[in-house]
Order: sequence, then structure tokens, then C-alpha cells
Amino acid sequence: MRSTTGWQADGTTSLREVPIPRRDLRRDDIAVRVDFCGVCHTDLHALRAHDGESLLVPGHEFTGVVSEVGPDVTVFQVGDSVAVGNIVDSCGVCSMCAAGQENFCREFPTLTYGGKDRHDGTPTLGGFSREYVVREKFAYPLPSGLDAAAAAPLMCAGITVWEPLRALGVGPGTRVAVAGLGGLGHLAVKFAAALGAEVSVVSRSADRAKDALRLGASDVVVSTDPDSTAAARDSFDVLIDTIPVPHDLGPYLALVAVDGTLSQVGHLGTITVEAMDLLVGRKKLSSGGSGGLPAIAAMLEFCAAHGITADVEVLPSARVDEALDRLERGDVRYRFVLDLSDLD
Amino acid sequence: MRSTTGWQADGTTSLREVPIPRRDLRRDDIAVRVDFCGVCHTDLHALRAHDGESLLVPGHEFTGVVSEVGPDVTVFQVGDSVAVGNIVDSCGVCSMCAAGQENFCREFPTLTYGGKDRHDGTPTLGGFSREYVVREKFAYPLPSGLDAAAAAPLMCAGITVWEPLRALGVGPGTRVAVAGLGGLGHLAVKFAAALGAEVSVVSRSADRAKDALRLGASDVVVSTDPDSTAAARDSFDVLIDTIPVPHDLGPYLALVAVDGTLSQVGHLGTITVEAMDLLVGRKKLSSGGSGGLPAIAAMLEFCAAHGITADVEVLPSARVDEALDRLERGDVRYRFVLDLSDLD
Repeated sequence: MRSTTGWQADGTTSLREVPIPRRDLRRDDIAVRVDFCGVCHTDLHALRAHDGESLLVPGHEFTGVVSEVGPDVTVFQVGDSVAVGNIVDSCGVCSMCAAGQENFCREFPTLTYGGKDRHDGTPTLGGFSREYVVREKFAYPLPSGLDAAAAAPLMCAGITVWEPLRALGVGPGTRVAVAGLGGLGHLAVKFAAALGAEVSVVSRSADRAKDALRLGASDVVVSTDPDSTAAARDSFDVLIDTIPVPHDLGPYLALVAVDGTLSQVGHLGTITVEAMDLLVGRKKLSSGGSGGLPAIAAMLEFCAAHGITADVEVLPSARVDEALDRLERGDVRYRFVLDLSDLD
Repeated sequence: MRSTTGWQADGTTSLREVPIPRRDLRRDDIAVRVDFCGVCHTDLHALRAHDGESLLVPGHEFTGVVSEVGPDVTVFQVGDSVAVGNIVDSCGVCSMCAAGQENFCREFPTLTYGGKDRHDGTPTLGGFSREYVVREKFAYPLPSGLDAAAAAPLMCAGITVWEPLRALGVGPGTRVAVAGLGGLGHLAVKFAAALGAEVSVVSRSADRAKDALRLGASDVVVSTDPDSTAAARDSFDVLIDTIPVPHDLGPYLALVAVDGTLSQVGHLGTITVEAMDLLVGRKKLSSGGSGGLPAIAAMLEFCAAHGITADVEVLPSARVDEALDRLERGDVRYRFVLDLSDLD
């Protein structure tokens, strides 16, 4: 057993710096010095729901440098830049894994934190720490052109919006709306625009217009302005709904075009929808929140080709509580990233 | 004002035979002698929810013969066989109407019963009656090869399942499941099989297997048998869910393949779904329940070409209460049709 330092939930709203265990490297493991880890709404939910008893170290979108490799590791060498997302293992043999959809593994994939290692049964502890040990198969080479801090959020926020955009065939000619301009939303705008789509942002206030245009949108629909929503009715082939709290889908489905799809990726609990809101216009509802290995590799390649990373505010990891509080209030443009070097 | 005879709700669970008014023909109206009208779950819902005060004559899938035409009528002549479905008018000028999606009319289409005529404001009274007056645009020539009684259910049950099958691209190579083998479900099986798909029926009991195969299915998934559902997991590109009551969608979504769609057409209230049931497998949810004029015409043409009508049990209209009671208990294979000739 090896040890590192991480930020652990203590049952209050604060995290505290503690030593945490990491497994000794298995034959196909790499050890990663974690440099940057994004702060995700999932972290917030996990902390707010934490019982104060179990070990909880959040963080599931991080970048860093390989510091040690197991004897069977073939892809990585010490010193390589890598990125890790929200799953770190899967059964590897089911039909989903065989199809490159490890995120849909029939035995459920191993989550980066809050999961259980499928070999030794220990709880997985996340990237709010200075070191992570991971099977090399679930680490990705970080393309050289991408800033390591700004790339970290690609590994969860990025793939969460990349998957529905790709699955729904977004490209030139597609009209895409992005509801909610936060960590997920701003990446959805960048991706959709780079894919060639015509992109609008749906926001409660017109304040976001300037930012939306800078990110690649061509228009803003103000959801609180009846004239604005009426003009946009039935007009988007794809609407990526990144709003992170439960909300009425009706007004958003009204913006979706005939045969279009609303993909709700921001809030992953129980969804309630009126059948009539789907029926009128033959509209579809989907969700999203993860990707398989090939999809994540393709996304990183796309990001490198198009120079896409997240807009981030980097804070020393000692300020993690502040980051979480401000995230909860929506006070970030657009993703907090913790710099873990202060844990040395 | 002209008059006919119909079956009107009286606030109990019974219908009673009464004289009902029909408008005098407008220039583009036809009068239809209603011969056969299907009995739909919607009729049951409307009757059970009826206040006992307002005029309610159910029935929105009927066939009959043209008995009179207005001076501007061009398509129909007296004596022609016609079919009418669940909408009888729309604004005609909005983008939806212009696109042949009168069912999605921006001003809401006029329902065959329980609606309000958009010209004179009178309540619309349905096809459980001996005569109906309708704009010729919303009546369809009944193809000569189709039995008039068995064709009536095509106009609501039929189009309700035809629309999602077509919208979701069902054809050779598509794996389709149909959950619930009633009025909608048995037509979904016939359509999907005739479209060239590989069709399975999902049923609570294996009793329906023989019928399912006769209708065109190649397999039955028994939803109460864990082995049967496990074997069918993630395997259908399209699942048409015709179950007419609220139910947990989770077990049905589990049968849908990656990137597949569950179309819930049997119960049109509030739908509750777990985001994770959509997320895992990038699955989609849709609904359905109507079609535009071109879609209905195309469906009738397809039915004529493939000899498809509903499996019906025809009862004299005086036995409408019995039909409704038995429909509520699921005791019909597969659609009741009222013969209105006893109203003469």
C-alpha cells in the first residue's frame, strides 16, 4: 500500500486534507501525479449527500503526469501527460465492453470515486488528491497542444455533452440549442460550433449573450422572455439541457423541432415529462453523462484538432471549499479546476 | 341544423341513445353515414372523466359512406366509402399545417369529439352516431380492398403506432418490440412485420405467443420471466409501448438497444423516467398518438397494399356499454367496433 494526500469529506460542508491510501501498482497500472482536477456538480451532490462516515474523496476529471508504470504497461512511460475521467475499470468481457461502451458495462463500470475496486474491493478515492493509481487502459494520453488545467474538465463535462452531440448526428446544418451556460453548457457550445452546427444558447437572462457569442453561438434565446421563446418555438433539432437542477421540461421541449431530441444531461435523477410535450412534434428525450474509451479518445483528438478546452478558473486545492460554494451558487465561468501542487 | 342519433354520456357509466345535432353542410363539408366506429381507450377515459353535464358523444375512428356533399367538395361523391380519424380540422395556415402536420397545428387541431368547431364554436360530437359532418380535407377515401369494419381502427389505433414506426425508420433489419398486445399493439406488430422488421411481442404471459406469431411476430418476451427479459436485454432498436396504464418504464427501457428508442403510445399522461435508464445505452423516449393528413393517407395506402386491417369484434352499437366494460378489462382481441346500422 502507498499513500498520498487528498481532500476528504468529513461530514460537514468542508473537506480536509488527509493522508489517503493508494494501491501498490498492479502489472497494468500506472501511477499519476495529479496536477489538475475539475470540480463537477457530481462532487457537490456527493458531498451534500455524504454520511460523514464512509471515505469520500471527490474528483473525476483530472490531468497529470505518469510517475510510475507497472511491468505490463505498454502505452505510457514515466513523464507522459495523461487524462483520466469518471470511470477507471470495467469487466472487459461483456457485450458493452466489447463494443467500446465500457461506460455501459453490464457489471457496471468502476467509478473513479465512490465506487469499489473490482479486484480488491477497496473503495475508490477520487482526483482531489496528489496521486491516483489507475489501469493504463482507462487513462488517455493528453494531446500536447492542450493546456493541462483547461483540459481536465473535458474528461467529465466534455464527454457528457460530446456523447449526445455525436449520437444525435450534430454537424453542418444541424440547429443546436444549449440550455444552461455552465461547465457542461459552455463546452457543448464550443463542440457544436466546431462540429459545424448553428448554435443558440437558452438562458434565463440576456446577460450571457456576449459570452455565448464568444463561445461560438450565433444567437441567445431568453427563456424568461415570451417573445424570444415564441420566436424559437419548434426550431432546434437538438437541445442539450445542462441545467443542473430539476425543472419543467415543457418550455424546453417546446423549442425542439419536429423529430428533434432534448438531451437532459445536467440533472440525473428522476425525469418527469408530459407525454403530450413529446407527442406534439414527435420529439424525443434522452440523457447522457459518460462515454466509452473510443468516444473519449475521439473527443480528445477533436479537441486537439480544434484547440478546444474548458474556460477555467484555477484555484489552489486548499481553496476547494470556496470552489464548491461558488459552484453551488453558479458563480464560475465556467469550470473550477483545482491545482493539486499545493499538496506537495 | 340537421339531426342524427348518437350514443351520449349521461354521467353514469352508461351511454344512452339520443338525437344529436349536426351542422348544415358548409361549402367544403361532406355528410357521412357512419357505418362502423372503433372503441378506443380514449373513449373510456373521456367517459370515466365526464362531468355528466357537457355533451359527450365518443368515437374518433370510423368508416362510412358519403351521403351528401357541399358545393365546393371536389374529392368525394355521394356513395364513396370514407374513413375519418381523431382530428377533423386545423388552422390550415401555420407552419405545421403547411408541412402536413395538421395534428401539430399551432392553434391545436379540432378533435373529432370533445373539441370545439373553429367556425361556429359548437362542441364536436363523435362517431358513436349515425351521421357525421366533416370538412372533406379531413376525410380519407377508404381503399376498396379493406373491410369497412376492420379498417375503422386504423384511423386512431393504426396511425398512433404507424407514426413512431415510420419516424424511427423501422424497416428490414430493424429489431422491433411491441409491449402490450391490444388494439394498438396488434396493429404495431402487423405494421412492423409488413415493413420488414424482426418483431417480438413483450407480454406479461406466454399465453399470447400463438397470437403474436400469427400477427407476424417471431418471438415473445415474457415480462414476468427474468430469464426471458435477461435474454432480450438491450436488444431492440425500437420498442412500441402500448400499455394503456401508467407503469414503470425501467424494465422496458432495459430491453431497448444502445441508441434505440422506446415510444410510449398507450398512456398519454405524465411520464416518469429515471435518467440513468436513458443514459445507460444512450436510449431515447418518445410518444405518439396522431398523424397528419399525408401520414394517414400513406398508412391507408400501405394497408391496402399489404391487406392490413385490425382484428375486430363487431357489436351492434346498442351494446356499446358492454364493449366499454370489456375493453376496460382487456377482454377483446383486439378492437371493438360498433356497427351503427342499428340506429336507423
